[in-house]
Amino acid sequence: MYNVGLTVFLPDSFLSETKDLKLKTSKVGIIGRALAVFNVNQVVIYRDTTKNQFDTHNDIDRNFSDGNFISKLLKYMDTPQYLRKSVYPIQSDLKYVGILPPLRTPNHPVDEAELGDYRQGFTVKRNKKGTFVDIGMKDLAFCKDQLTVNKVFSFKVTKIAKEVIVIPDEPDDIYWGYKTLYNQETLKNSLKSVNFDFVIVTTRYGSDIRFIFNELSSEIKNHENVAILFGSPYHGISEDIFKSIESSSPNIIKLNSIPNQGTETVRTEEALISTLAIFNMIYNG
Amino acid sequence: MYNVGLTVFLPDSFLSETKDLKLKTSKVGIIGRALAVFNVNQVVIYRDTTKNQFDTHNDIDRNFSDGNFISKLLKYMDTPQYLRKSVYPIQSDLKYVGILPPLRTPNHPVDEAELGDYRQGFTVKRNKKGTFVDIGMKDLAFCKDQLTVNKVFSFKVTKIAKEVIVIPDEPDDIYWGYKTLYNQETLKNSLKSVNFDFVIVTTRYGSDIRFIFNELSSEIKNHENVAILFGSPYHGISEDIFKSIESSSPNIIKLNSIPNQGTETVRTEEALISTLAIFNMIYNG
Repeated sequence: MYNVGLTVFLPDSFLSETKDLKLKTSKVGIIGRALAVFNVNQVVIYRDTTKNQFDTHNDIDRNFSDGNFISKLLKYMDTPQYLRKSVYPIQSDLKYVGILPPLRTPNHPVDEAELGDYRQGFTVKRNKKGTFVDIGMKDLAFCKDQLTVNKVFSFKVTKIAKEVIVIPDEPDDIYWGYKTLYNQETLKNSLKSVNFDFVIVTTRYGSDIRFIFNELSSEIKNHENVAILFGSPYHGISEDIFKSIESSSPNIIKLNSIPNQGTETVRTEEALISTLAIFNMIYNG
Repeated sequence: MYNVGLTVFLPDSFLSETKDLKLKTSKVGIIGRALAVFNVNQVVIYRDTTKNQFDTHNDIDRNFSDGNFISKLLKYMDTPQYLRKSVYPIQSDLKYVGILPPLRTPNHPVDEAELGDYRQGFTVKRNKKGTFVDIGMKDLAFCKDQLTVNKVFSFKVTKIAKEVIVIPDEPDDIYWGYKTLYNQETLKNSLKSVNFDFVIVTTRYGSDIRFIFNELSSEIKNHENVAILFGSPYHGISEDIFKSIESSSPNIIKLNSIPNQGTETVRTEEALISTLAIFNMIYNG
């Protein structure tokens, strides 16, 4: 999985059917978990500009603030527990973060750091010699690089003595969480910010996974950067957008990952988990 | 899918990490949706007798009541909207049913009944000639059979005139919702109450789906009644239980449907949706 850059695109409208902050939080929790369970490297939240049944007015504004909320919560979930208080001061929309399920990914270690371990750290302060970093140990670690303060970076522990020394580094053989992007852009524009050489557009009007499984498998194995697109919960992905992706990227497939669905509609989180489960099965690490 | 009897076994402990009724309700909602999306015919909730980290005492009692709650809510979700008030009088543990997502399965019609339609109905009263049934129309329909009152049955509309006449019947070519069983029995005993000729035991220690996909596909296609077992969220399915199933049913496979999982653990609802997505893809209606 680690050589594949897997990016998932989700609409900022997937929370629009509820106004309850606790339930919104819980639903983002399901999404964040799905991304981590299936080793997704990057999630892009895009601005869904279609209208939906739950918003009679002002729906684009509503999705805007949901987009900020979704991306904040997804980043929060991906942040190791020991850094959350530093990175996220108390905020009203984080009121229910206590109900978010832990990811328990390798970038959320529970043991003390040892020599050679990788750790995410928060840059606390900087002097001429370098930067002091909170990597969840009793004392701050030190990095000789001049790093921007108040940010999270990944480090490798290179010395444990009186002082713990770290260097900026990220492991390439274990899953290290996902990045979250949200630029308040439409799907079309958001696609420009990400590198991919194969696109899967999920839609119930796509090719039945039962019939294109082999084709899909060989495509996935032949491409390094795969994007999986999920449409608006109410309108899917329009033919316009599909055509515009197709014109710039010929390696595109429309996929129905839930053929013969028993329900009239499939929800974003259901489509996400189902599609990722199949993708994960195809990808042969 | 309709010739396959697909039964899913779930532990009554999958809600044990939260005491919040709204969140419990929401989580059952995810499960009910997954069953319907993937045309599951039957769900058996079994009593998980293993201890878990969230209950330091009294955990078996706790799961008992969660089991009742889970099965009540799953049945509620499968009940057409027009019958819910008759079937479910106000109850404190149904306080948050308003947040349950609708299934929108074919047994939850939104249009007026027409001649030849199938409808689930609630038996309201009976006389010597037959039974009056609420099938969601303005007036009660009439069935010439002597049926138990205050129960839900499936009917076919055979005449629409001054009176609407129905006969007990169920369609066999469309998905008609799922049945819920909960007998407060252990997995071992619950298995005795269900017919199956092939069993999939989901566990991260099972065979990697990537390597047994073809074998699994042909097994599924060769068997009519498939059971998929999900273990305790904390202890999985014990070797003891596995052996006892194996001894009475040789067609059993241990499956890891999420190889290379990015998280330390996989939650019941994640395993359920992922496994059903793969099963659904294999099954070729």
